[in-house]
Amino acid sequence: MDLTHLYERAKKAGRGLLQWPVERVNEVLRAVADEAVARTEYILAENARDLARMSPDNPLYDRLKLTAERIQGIASDTRHVAELPSPLGRVLKHTVLPNGLDLKRVSVPFGVIGVIYEARPNVTFDVFSLCLKAGSACVLKGGRDADCSNRAIVEVIHGVLERFGMNPDTLTLLPADREATASLLQARGYVDLLIPRGGRSLIDYVRDNARIPVIETGAGVCHTYFDAGGDLRKGTAIVNNAKTRRVSVCNALDSLLVHESRLADLPALCAPLAESRVRIYADAPALAALDGHYPADLLEAAMDEHYGTEFMDYKMAVRTVASLDEALAHIARFGSGHSECIVTEDAEAAARFQQMVDAACVYVNAPTSFTDGAQFGLGAEIGISTQKLHARGPMALEEITTYKWLVRGDGQVRPK
Amino acid sequence: MDLTHLYERAKKAGRGLLQWPVERVNEVLRAVADEAVARTEYILAENARDLARMSPDNPLYDRLKLTAERIQGIASDTRHVAELPSPLGRVLKHTVLPNGLDLKRVSVPFGVIGVIYEARPNVTFDVFSLCLKAGSACVLKGGRDADCSNRAIVEVIHGVLERFGMNPDTLTLLPADREATASLLQARGYVDLLIPRGGRSLIDYVRDNARIPVIETGAGVCHTYFDAGGDLRKGTAIVNNAKTRRVSVCNALDSLLVHESRLADLPALCAPLAESRVRIYADAPALAALDGHYPADLLEAAMDEHYGTEFMDYKMAVRTVASLDEALAHIARFGSGHSECIVTEDAEAAARFQQMVDAACVYVNAPTSFTDGAQFGLGAEIGISTQKLHARGPMALEEITTYKWLVRGDGQVRPK
Repeated sequence: MDLTHLYERAKKAGRGLLQWPVERVNEVLRAVADEAVARTEYILAENARDLARMSPDNPLYDRLKLTAERIQGIASDTRHVAELPSPLGRVLKHTVLPNGLDLKRVSVPFGVIGVIYEARPNVTFDVFSLCLKAGSACVLKGGRDADCSNRAIVEVIHGVLERFGMNPDTLTLLPADREATASLLQARGYVDLLIPRGGRSLIDYVRDNARIPVIETGAGVCHTYFDAGGDLRKGTAIVNNAKTRRVSVCNALDSLLVHESRLADLPALCAPLAESRVRIYADAPALAALDGHYPADLLEAAMDEHYGTEFMDYKMAVRTVASLDEALAHIARFGSGHSECIVTEDAEAAARFQQMVDAACVYVNAPTSFTDGAQFGLGAEIGISTQKLHARGPMALEEITTYKWLVRGDGQVRPK
Repeated sequence: MDLTHLYERAKKAGRGLLQWPVERVNEVLRAVADEAVARTEYILAENARDLARMSPDNPLYDRLKLTAERIQGIASDTRHVAELPSPLGRVLKHTVLPNGLDLKRVSVPFGVIGVIYEARPNVTFDVFSLCLKAGSACVLKGGRDADCSNRAIVEVIHGVLERFGMNPDTLTLLPADREATASLLQARGYVDLLIPRGGRSLIDYVRDNARIPVIETGAGVCHTYFDAGGDLRKGTAIVNNAKTRRVSVCNALDSLLVHESRLADLPALCAPLAESRVRIYADAPALAALDGHYPADLLEAAMDEHYGTEFMDYKMAVRTVASLDEALAHIARFGSGHSECIVTEDAEAAARFQQMVDAACVYVNAPTSFTDGAQFGLGAEIGISTQKLHARGPMALEEITTYKWLVRGDGQVRPK
């Protein structure tokens, strides 16, 4: 499928955005928020057509469903993006060289950002408003399940863009099929950055086939290590929050590592999990320690495959380690580079854990559930990067900008 | 070819570097410099074996050839890297959130950096010292033409690493064949960043086939626009320096754009180029302006293919434009996003040029020949990025680091 004409138009729209002052962009965002609310009935009617094609038993149903209240929430998020400081025009470095050349490294838009996502129509609003605020046009490829909702949302946004005289190609929604995904991966020279949001297989497919720069988001196999020097009260709260706050998110706890000297504390550490009916897969020493203290119907011997699994469910693996180094080796082997935590009062152990763990977010005495753009004070989030290039961990407005070097001289030349 | 065992060892070495204090790393670098000089005879003997297999007429011959003086230069560069400030451990952001969480974004090593390059043995020293200073192990794939030289250099460096008790897998040289390149592109989970240095076809192949993050370096199709408000004296110096300082580098001028109102100044603007025997491909108005003022044997009518060509030679295209906007459109169409320049005394035109040109380095009244890590005061250079992700323009030590978020709490949990 040749969608080049769409990419060309998006590129032109992205270029046009360079001349829009941030105040006007914020006005557009506020108007989009107002219009989303004003057109609630229309959006819900189109959403109902999508819902009619999905069984309410499908776990995706709830993510697909919009309500008047959810549209209020979306509008409020969009207004919030309008209030955030602009990520553009920041002077990241400024030097005057001995020869008088004035050198500035300044944040600028990418140009065109592509996002591939699944059945969540709210993402259409989110991605549009973050990309626009970051000065880029966006090319979206949504899920087929949400296509009526997405088309309605895009129509509503386009109406606002036209009213403000902004090029409607600032927001492009591709056809909701696999051919469009394949085409987007090849949009070299048009799409400057591609962010896939979705399941493992989508992200793997995108990374392996893209000819344009990609930021991987996604899988979080997250560990919490209860160290020899861990405080039991803090540990109990941290483990419970990391595991049960929301099990379906990437920052949720998957494997608890416990120092062998603290096995006697394991029942207390895990006690609150029983209330949420968390199934525990424990190695032999941990199993022995929990036996009789944790509901027997929720307790199983761990198999190899439980380590390194992102459960996305009320399930957790437990492994006993003999030392901090063994915990570090386990995390290096099974972690996905997302979020890892140590519970300890031992400053040296904490420092070594933060130094040695290679992950986007490394916690001491706080649960991995905090890994989130809004929680980190970034004001928003377009995804959580699990790669090391460009952005790591929660990505918000700054992370979806690039920079250029602005050099001013007065006729200086470089010696031979 | 399965080279996984080599990547595993490199990964382990990279992990080990996390515990090396920067002062010790600098000692290693200085010792490598000393040893390179001490082993000059051996390195030159191995280099002679490579040279014996190449015709002296081959344009690569000079790049391949080492001399005692060049080794002195390499040693001096290596000592210089030891003197540079460490790019690691910089606190890029620091916030204490209202809930008391202490959040730091800190620069850290990538882990393992892969570099693919062609017949320049000095790159082996350069890349090793920059990667080591940036805390990463490196996996190098050099050109077959330079293989004896590269093996000798690696042997010399390994000797120093062993003496200091540093894991020799900190520097891995792969076999000099295509299978090794293909394997490196698939080293997912081991190699965190891949930088191809070389010709267009190598870079295209790497980008299209890599399953690991890549930073593209390379092609520079660079423009200089002599605006209606350009100063002729500055313009003449800038054009001559950008075109003739070194024609074989990516920052060299390829196309001169001239405002139609300044065609009468074109002969003076191009006059110094005749001394370097620069061949000019000019459009009709420029050709008419130059006729009789520039050596006839160096003057030709421009063909379409001359625009957008990286000449790497004493050749330059000239095009006449009716406005700044026409110059911007030409650059948007034919530029490669490397380095672009405007010569003007008109502040408004300069500002608009810097705002609208989408390139790594955008110059006002200074030649594109300044695009270079050392010239930019970065202290070194591992390549010039022509992509927008992660690093843009000259890349030095900071650009080959990533970051992680270090979060410290005291048992806080995230509300539901």
